[in-house]
Amino acid sequence: MQLSWQPLPLQLIHPFRIAHGTSSVRHNVLVRVDDGLGEAAAVHYHGETPERIVEYLRGVDLSEYSDPAQLEDIVSGLPVGSAAARAGIDIALYDAWGRALGQPLYRLFGLNPQRIPLTSFTIPLGSAEEMAERARTTDAPMLKIKLGSEAEDRARIAALRSVTSVPLRVDANGGWTLAGAEALLPELAEHGVELVEQPLPVGDLEGLRRLFQLRSRPPLFADESIKSAADILAHQGLVEGVVIKLAKCGGIRAALEQITLAHSLGLEVMLGCMIESSVAVTAAAHLAALCQYVDLDGPLLIRNDPFQGVAYERGRLRLSTRPGLGLLPAPSTPE
Amino acid sequence: MQLSWQPLPLQLIHPFRIAHGTSSVRHNVLVRVDDGLGEAAAVHYHGETPERIVEYLRGVDLSEYSDPAQLEDIVSGLPVGSAAARAGIDIALYDAWGRALGQPLYRLFGLNPQRIPLTSFTIPLGSAEEMAERARTTDAPMLKIKLGSEAEDRARIAALRSVTSVPLRVDANGGWTLAGAEALLPELAEHGVELVEQPLPVGDLEGLRRLFQLRSRPPLFADESIKSAADILAHQGLVEGVVIKLAKCGGIRAALEQITLAHSLGLEVMLGCMIESSVAVTAAAHLAALCQYVDLDGPLLIRNDPFQGVAYERGRLRLSTRPGLGLLPAPSTPE
Repeated sequence: MQLSWQPLPLQLIHPFRIAHGTSSVRHNVLVRVDDGLGEAAAVHYHGETPERIVEYLRGVDLSEYSDPAQLEDIVSGLPVGSAAARAGIDIALYDAWGRALGQPLYRLFGLNPQRIPLTSFTIPLGSAEEMAERARTTDAPMLKIKLGSEAEDRARIAALRSVTSVPLRVDANGGWTLAGAEALLPELAEHGVELVEQPLPVGDLEGLRRLFQLRSRPPLFADESIKSAADILAHQGLVEGVVIKLAKCGGIRAALEQITLAHSLGLEVMLGCMIESSVAVTAAAHLAALCQYVDLDGPLLIRNDPFQGVAYERGRLRLSTRPGLGLLPAPSTPE
Repeated sequence: MQLSWQPLPLQLIHPFRIAHGTSSVRHNVLVRVDDGLGEAAAVHYHGETPERIVEYLRGVDLSEYSDPAQLEDIVSGLPVGSAAARAGIDIALYDAWGRALGQPLYRLFGLNPQRIPLTSFTIPLGSAEEMAERARTTDAPMLKIKLGSEAEDRARIAALRSVTSVPLRVDANGGWTLAGAEALLPELAEHGVELVEQPLPVGDLEGLRRLFQLRSRPPLFADESIKSAADILAHQGLVEGVVIKLAKCGGIRAALEQITLAHSLGLEVMLGCMIESSVAVTAAAHLAALCQYVDLDGPLLIRNDPFQGVAYERGRLRLSTRPGLGLLPAPSTPE
């Protein structure tokens, strides 16, 4: 099988401010394995860069393989290193496999796409007024609010609650202190916040243990802290759930394993994405019926998605019955 | 989809004596879901009986389903109760799914059948002389020795070692006391025994903890103690591996999950079987490339297997490329 790749620069509809910084373009990598398509998105908070992804891809040789159905051999034989690059290869392989078998991936996983939970839509970090304005102008049935600078978070959530009654999730991206989180979480519970992602910085398990014992708080989910199966094991008893993303764990095969592990431990799973085109997000959507929560709005945040994959109907994900990922080239639109 | 079943009485080539008793016929149940074939074998040590299996099957209605690719919905929607009966339904569903997709199951799991480890062949409990004689007359490249009555086990293993140099595994079927196991295990290590299954009765986790700390012993595997994911979690740090069987855990889908869980915890997996025909054992063989150890000799122990499935070449398992399980009716043989 033949591996190739090319740059996939994604232009953001709104420049994106999160606890880690700001950006208006993301430099993903489009990966091909024969006729299969994959995508690698740099997970900056795990030290990934587009350069590192390309360097990893340069070191991979799939020419000894000729059958995409040898998924286990191929994926487990990939060198250690960039999880994002491995995800790109893994997604392309699964697409090639589904195309070869003439089946959409969800059918090859035995899943019912009608069971996919509604996805949330992300409101990026901004002033309380900006965020409320953004919430007012979307018809999304469920919002994910980026917080993380404690001083203003109280005003932000109040402003949002004043303009919308849809379910709200909060993502602090590790931006709170323990004391700040202890003060905020009970208030978020009063506002009916559905869950809170990554309240504390990666590695603060002791802080998480303290938050977990708060009497009144929304369910807690670990995101940036979760990369490997070992990370999931380490979060037993400290969170209600974990956020699994293909780019963090290394692709579809690893995600299926991590979902199984989390569920075996009694943890819920939110399936998330990076800023990614329809390639990677459609791959995740094929697994989404296994998960309790879905946060797969990547393609809604970019203006130059080169593909058409999972479709959105007010938060409801629709997968086509085409083989593999089921991607088509994006219809050309007047610029 | 339509569920039906019929008795599947299996005649043993040699009446089988184990720590739990003796038997010359096993009353399994042949399960059909549309054109898919499955098998339910009563796991007596988990309280299963053929009658209980049939009672469970009577309570299941699959008529609301029409597509075997909705595996997750169908399997997760089965009522609680008999794991063996659920395994029979699950196997038949997977067979129907593979037939519908025109693919052998191992390809739908992304597995390479060349990676399946050699299977062991079972020497049932008997006198030292009987067991040595049985070992002398097989060409199996790996033997699994049933032990479990401590007084004679020392003589048995010595007699076996005097007639064969192939790798030996020991299955105590929970028949040892802690003191007996503490004395025997170092000796088994000296005899080069590859691993020991279920040295102590189910539930003796404290005893297992003691055995695990012995300086010289073969790797320990839990079998009868392992039914659910919770059992696997409870054995972390007490054994090197677990024995997973479709009939214990509820079928292919549950076995895939348990294998993933065990590996995530750093445990090795032996894939085992009950006294089963080629239906259930071929189903297990389709997963076997995921496991470190294989003990799938069921069809070699019975004289009236109605099907032809996985083939054996001196311990090497061979799967056909036919769709689903790939079963054919057994060739008629002169009696």
